[in-house]
Amino acid sequence: MRGLLIGRFQPFHSGHLAAVRQIRTDRPSEQLILGIGSAQESYTWKNPFTASERIEMAVLAIEEAKLDGVIVMPVPDIDRHALWVRYLETLLPRFERVYTNNPLTRALFEDAKYPVESPSLIDRARFEGERVREYLAAGVDWTPLVPPAVARYLSQIGGPARLALLRLDPSVGPLSP
Amino acid sequence: MRGLLIGRFQPFHSGHLAAVRQIRTDRPSEQLILGIGSAQESYTWKNPFTASERIEMAVLAIEEAKLDGVIVMPVPDIDRHALWVRYLETLLPRFERVYTNNPLTRALFEDAKYPVESPSLIDRARFEGERVREYLAAGVDWTPLVPPAVARYLSQIGGPARLALLRLDPSVGPLSP
Amino acid sequence: MRGLLIGRFQPFHSGHLAAVRQIRTDRPSEQLILGIGSAQESYTWKNPFTASERIEMAVLAIEEAKLDGVIVMPVPDIDRHALWVRYLETLLPRFERVYTNNPLTRALFEDAKYPVESPSLIDRARFEGERVREYLAAGVDWTPLVPPAVARYLSQIGGPARLALLRLDPSVGPLSP
Amino acid sequence: MRGLLIGRFQPFHSGHLAAVRQIRTDRPSEQLILGIGSAQESYTWKNPFTASERIEMAVLAIEEAKLDGVIVMPVPDIDRHALWVRYLETLLPRFERVYTNNPLTRALFEDAKYPVESPSLIDRARFEGERVREYLAAGVDWTPLVPPAVARYLSQIGGPARLALLRLDPSVGPLSP
Amino acid sequence: MRGLLIGRFQPFHSGHLAAVRQIRTDRPSEQLILGIGSAQESYTWKNPFTASERIEMAVLAIEEAKLDGVIVMPVPDIDRHALWVRYLETLLPRFERVYTNNPLTRALFEDAKYPVESPSLIDRARFEGERVREYLAAGVDWTPLVPPAVARYLSQIGGPARLALLRLDPSVGPLSP
Amino acid sequence: MRGLLIGRFQPFHSGHLAAVRQIRTDRPSEQLILGIGSAQESYTWKNPFTASERIEMAVLAIEEAKLDGVIVMPVPDIDRHALWVRYLETLLPRFERVYTNNPLTRALFEDAKYPVESPSLIDRARFEGERVREYLAAGVDWTPLVPPAVARYLSQIGGPARLALLRLDPSVGPLSP
Repeated sequence: MRGLLIGRFQPFHSGHLAAVRQIRTDRPSEQLILGIGSAQESYTWKNPFTASERIEMAVLAIEEAKLDGVIVMPVPDIDRHALWVRYLETLLPRFERVYTNNPLTRALFEDAKYPVESPSLIDRARFEGERVREYLAAGVDWTPLVPPAVARYLSQIGGPARLALLRLDPSVGPLSP
Repeated sequence: MRGLLIGRFQPFHSGHLAAVRQIRTDRPSEQLILGIGSAQESYTWKNPFTASERIEMAVLAIEEAKLDGVIVMPVPDIDRHALWVRYLETLLPRFERVYTNNPLTRALFEDAKYPVESPSLIDRARFEGERVREYLAAGVDWTPLVPPAVARYLSQIGGPARLALLRLDPSVGPLSP
Repeated sequence: MRGLLIGRFQPFHSGHLAAVRQIRTDRPSEQLILGIGSAQESYTWKNPFTASERIEMAVLAIEEAKLDGVIVMPVPDIDRHALWVRYLETLLPRFERVYTNNPLTRALFEDAKYPVESPSLIDRARFEGERVREYLAAGVDWTPLVPPAVARYLSQIGGPARLALLRLDPSVGPLSP
Repeated sequence: MRGLLIGRFQPFHSGHLAAVRQIRTDRPSEQLILGIGSAQESYTWKNPFTASERIEMAVLAIEEAKLDGVIVMPVPDIDRHALWVRYLETLLPRFERVYTNNPLTRALFEDAKYPVESPSLIDRARFEGERVREYLAAGVDWTPLVPPAVARYLSQIGGPARLALLRLDPSVGPLSP
Repeated sequence: MRGLLIGRFQPFHSGHLAAVRQIRTDRPSEQLILGIGSAQESYTWKNPFTASERIEMAVLAIEEAKLDGVIVMPVPDIDRHALWVRYLETLLPRFERVYTNNPLTRALFEDAKYPVESPSLIDRARFEGERVREYLAAGVDWTPLVPPAVARYLSQIGGPARLALLRLDPSVGPLSP
Repeated sequence: MRGLLIGRFQPFHSGHLAAVRQIRTDRPSEQLILGIGSAQESYTWKNPFTASERIEMAVLAIEEAKLDGVIVMPVPDIDRHALWVRYLETLLPRFERVYTNNPLTRALFEDAKYPVESPSLIDRARFEGERVREYLAAGVDWTPLVPPAVARYLSQIGGPARLALLRLDPSVGPLSP
């Protein structure tokens, strides 16, 4: 049996790690696929990091936390929501359960007869992707929001400077102004 | 001779049906192509229903109104506006006239030498796609805004619940938050 | 109830019309969707005619044969075969039965639990798309292979000349040599 | 040696021409590639003019200013920012220097070890694409913002009327309302 | 340190497993990324199995062989070969070495300064993707060509029947004839 | 007035240069756009060189031949032949005449009412793209087939070695075998 936790993980923060830990604890005999969504995106305010960088962050955090049974996989978008569940079924190894707090994701998978569960949230107001990006862009107080291994990685690749740049024009890219 | 009325029909509401009825009455000897635009879109706030569902709604409403001579066709977007008229000419059966209240659509077809007409609007403030979606999302008072057959269909496929979900995040899709 | 007959109809020939007639005769109470596949293709040897032209041919032949209950719709390709059935379900109005002589189409729809039937073939060696195109390219003896209305239409749009051109380079397009 | 100045040039205004003149004056022995970005876009508020029209404007203004050594080229978007520099390297003739005032463009090219320079800006608040479009849409006082040859061209193709139309719905296109 | 072995694995056969075993034996301290290329393809003669199915096969075979340190990841094509290396760098976790017997892959990665090695081939004439597919389509003598776990999986999903179908039309898909 | 000569120029050989020279001689007051088609392709047998490399070759040969009035531009494919002429009209600066020896290109532009001319061919059997590629792959006797500046450029970028590699698998790319 396998479960699927899908998100964009921009970046992989402590709320994500807590969800992974909870799922692995609750169901130790099931593998967990961590699907890195919008894998084709990068260098925008909403999606600052490449799939490569996001996979690195997730793997570093999971190793640091000594969690096992997690498979990390890139998932490029398919721009037809009505085909999304079927698309994931053909891209990822078989899964029988889905974890999400997103109401639309829940609805699409329930329509396709999957059991869907919500990881209980630890301090969601604090651990929320956009908020973490705002702190990174400001360059202060962001390290407590991500696992230590992710903090080191983000410092090493210049994450705060990239976010500060992208913060200037949240909507687009190199040709925007 | 054929005419073309193109829109997204999210959903097919009573204003659309009134326009179809008027066109069929004014020009009974011309067929009317009803082009379901942005056919590839679904499960977003702006485009909640699949092309399949929108075609069903249009066909049900047209049959209920006992109108004939209407051909309903899906039209996926081509993301190059300057090619749009030529694209429609290669996708749809031949048409010689266009009906629209959209100024850009009017301009593009007039540049291509098509006669363009505006269906006279019945209570446009009331019968407007976004407003109908807002009422569906709120779950009250929406049935008078659509033909009875569409109201039954929307209830049957869970339209109000879908709109309520999508209302939470109007910009994107399953990976948004 | 509706059935679906999907093909490329390059061009719509007498074998296609015979299949439509048989299906309408066998199941007069069911509508038939005629899906014009590879709708985005044109001006290649394999797909010489635009979706617009193929829809015209199908509609002319069906009217000439005084058949009713047939809905003709363009179906652009989705280049992921494993999503094809689901894609058709979201693009076309609801259908409950599929007609095909293609083994892969049969397999994909049977996997998705659709009843699939094979229209009995009248002289398939004779009425086969590629063969009809060869005759058109040669410019002789092709009119008996298509319904009279299609023959008139093909003559009017210069079908034989187009096929003769495309015959020179069956693989590609304007930049090929 | 060649330099690259990339932008969308919607439209090509006097600030653009001043930047080209400065670069050609500072480095007369280097050719300058003027990359017309988002070349696939047109008929939106953000990208009102086709690549064809934008190339015409740039060429007319450069000829009028008697500048030489400038190569104008269309550059369609690639929707993966992390591949953008490499994409430009494979699309455009070889260049060794980049001119930009966009911080993200600067960062991406600096990561790829290109020397990047900022053309000094003449009155940037005045010569800014969106502002020029606003004046065109209003139909007053826009001619001083573009070179005379561009003003004549924009009048001839109906630029102000197009912008006025697109101003009504800044986000989308023919199917928007 | 990580290495990358990229292929289409249609299906994952004993030659692939031997290459993985050799690499893991030669460099036990390096992780190996197994990139499942052309991940978007399925149900064609050249690419009969979905990415999902190919990942399952690879994982089953690797577990059965008790090999560790292998990360399996789907890699959809990018249809611009000159961007391929850069694309893989942005999609996959960081890798420093590439294993391939394909001369073009070797050339592209060597141009990008990667060390490239050729896994020594065990009986390549026998263990070659197209040949394995031919045997599967014929339905005889194919089990010795794949690891036992893959043989069981292929039987369970009806692999031989699918290949027999696709063998009939090696070039295309559901609309081919 | 401008003319358009469009091709793939894989590589730019002496037959191409002769055509350019003839057109410039016959109509010295008209600019000539040299459209580098299939600009997105590279590293395949049919399209071995990137747009960047092909533009370099064309520019070098034209400068060496002291021809002026030629504008070289990349033209990515649009995969809808029926839209090709309109697409070129929106991508390239305005042109009023087309030069081609390709019958389909001739037909598409004549349908759109363009005057079309055939450059008279010098020794077409000898100066033909595929034949030049075969000689490059063999590594012998190819220099007389291209202008001297192109011969130097191809030697410098390793053209013969690349063609020899691609010759091994004429159909595909890095994942082919």
